[in-house]
Amino acid sequence: MTSIVILGAGMMGTALAFPLADNHHDVRLVGTHLDDEIVASLKKNGTHPKLALEIPRAVRPFSHDEIEAAAEGAELWALGVSSAGIPWATSKIAPFVRRDTPVFMITKGLVLEGSRLETLPDVVRSGLPDAVRADIHPAAIAGPCIAGELARRVPSCVVLAGRDKRSLGRIADAIRAPYYHPFATTDVVGAEVSAALKNAYAMGIGFAAGMHEKQGGAAGSVAMHNLESATMAQAVLEMRRIVVRLGGDPDTVSGLAGVGDLDVTTNGGRTGRFGKLLGQGLTRDEAIAGMKGATLECLEILAVMKAALNAGAIGRLAKKDLPLLGHLIDVALDGAPVDLPLARFFQDEGA
Amino acid sequence: MTSIVILGAGMMGTALAFPLADNHHDVRLVGTHLDDEIVASLKKNGTHPKLALEIPRAVRPFSHDEIEAAAEGAELWALGVSSAGIPWATSKIAPFVRRDTPVFMITKGLVLEGSRLETLPDVVRSGLPDAVRADIHPAAIAGPCIAGELARRVPSCVVLAGRDKRSLGRIADAIRAPYYHPFATTDVVGAEVSAALKNAYAMGIGFAAGMHEKQGGAAGSVAMHNLESATMAQAVLEMRRIVVRLGGDPDTVSGLAGVGDLDVTTNGGRTGRFGKLLGQGLTRDEAIAGMKGATLECLEILAVMKAALNAGAIGRLAKKDLPLLGHLIDVALDGAPVDLPLARFFQDEGA
Repeated sequence: MTSIVILGAGMMGTALAFPLADNHHDVRLVGTHLDDEIVASLKKNGTHPKLALEIPRAVRPFSHDEIEAAAEGAELWALGVSSAGIPWATSKIAPFVRRDTPVFMITKGLVLEGSRLETLPDVVRSGLPDAVRADIHPAAIAGPCIAGELARRVPSCVVLAGRDKRSLGRIADAIRAPYYHPFATTDVVGAEVSAALKNAYAMGIGFAAGMHEKQGGAAGSVAMHNLESATMAQAVLEMRRIVVRLGGDPDTVSGLAGVGDLDVTTNGGRTGRFGKLLGQGLTRDEAIAGMKGATLECLEILAVMKAALNAGAIGRLAKKDLPLLGHLIDVALDGAPVDLPLARFFQDEGA
Repeated sequence: MTSIVILGAGMMGTALAFPLADNHHDVRLVGTHLDDEIVASLKKNGTHPKLALEIPRAVRPFSHDEIEAAAEGAELWALGVSSAGIPWATSKIAPFVRRDTPVFMITKGLVLEGSRLETLPDVVRSGLPDAVRADIHPAAIAGPCIAGELARRVPSCVVLAGRDKRSLGRIADAIRAPYYHPFATTDVVGAEVSAALKNAYAMGIGFAAGMHEKQGGAAGSVAMHNLESATMAQAVLEMRRIVVRLGGDPDTVSGLAGVGDLDVTTNGGRTGRFGKLLGQGLTRDEAIAGMKGATLECLEILAVMKAALNAGAIGRLAKKDLPLLGHLIDVALDGAPVDLPLARFFQDEGA
């Protein structure tokens, strides 16, 4: 039995508690200040209002001001906050993390630091106290995993990416369950860049379904699947191109972290729905309004990528080398109409 | 204007006539002996009964015994028959093909010749007369292209694979249309192996939706998308592995021909529906009956791959190196129940 603290009681942080509890670990689920209602509900009757599920009885909920109690004897730390919450979460766990307590996260995103794109595990590491930083190499989970499905014990395969093989092994052993299969990799850049970019590209893959509806078409086997799948293939090509320039392994993109997560995000996620609204011809602002306040990670990562391209932070890649991403930036950030540049797809780099 | 003969008036052969006619070519559409009713309908009122569409007026229909008239002055040959029909089609065009008339096909499949897996372009080439064989390098179209969508001018991107760049250029120029984007590659093995295997793997990707329905779940954002997308990622990994052993470029699998076609086949094709029936728990025979006579290319290619593995025709790959393909063979050919071996997914080759 391992004592594990999960910081962040949203859908994904809480879903992670299921395999951990099923493995008979001592699981402490700590809400952020955004999770107060959730924690209150969990304390009252064990029900997570967003997952619409009872959590396992063995999981103990804590509010953020109770973190000291939750941290007692912690042997493993998991971060389940939003990407914007990573600096806060890092400062929150910093007093408690020891050299021998691995840290991992389910948060996805990239941060532009000056002219350098950083993955979140590196951001967390740089926020840890000097005394432990040399020994802690935070890991991250990527791959196709909708929280509501993991919490319902749907069979799921994920990538566990980190630079330290020993702590990867400890984390994998703790989280592996009959329905939850972590596969370890040291390609943090490939996994994390894929995990972040898939939100942007899944939005674009969603365009085709919206365009079909706009033309009055009903869902069915003859729709705009050809266009949708061509967009997906171009997304994979561009993600591979970006990962190579950032020093990662492009084959990671062709696996769970890229292809797998792109597919699940398109089929099961709000990002695909947002793309569909844009494909229907709604303006950017209308589409955002249509999502009724849902967090749109795609807009966050597109803003980061736009700034990164401007700063020359992706090797020497320019917007013209990434025609799909460029179009997604134009549509989602700058209000251009949807008009996928198919003739510019599938060209050699710089051609 | 180019004079083009399409042999095979099924859904895909006929769909190809649309961009060709829109490009003002002289298009002759020749039915096989399986297409007699289709050709009769086309001659009567221009309507294709399976596409449920009128074909462009400029397309002239011919029956197979009128091929000599159709062949007059032909400058380009397209084969749109089933994979089983390839030897017949080759013998049918052999008297008419000249050294300077490129041949291409939309037929997909692999053939085991002794202990060698051959792509269909190579099979066609070996069936051409000695006098032209040195100069003709048949090309093939792969990638995500549902016929009913192409015929409705849905934007589509395809791979045009062939070993002779000059004839690739001529074919691409003839077929390119504002809604039909061919991208040329010389990686025939990568494109054709992807095109053939995607039918097998799309069946497996369909399992998850069936398993979800079997448990009483309704379609929605929380289903078994995690499992479906993990299966897709493993499919891409195994297809890359097979392509490498057969001498192709694995990156072709990560593009239109592999990822793109897998996605479209899963979402829009009968193969995905067949996989769903198996995932619901129907036996192989019940699932076949449930498809009401639809051609199941997945069963054909699985039989070829089973024989190829037994014959050592895929480098030294064995069934254990391809756990998903092995399971698909067990289920679809040998009647095993669906039980995806997730713990064996995403391992290094031979591990």
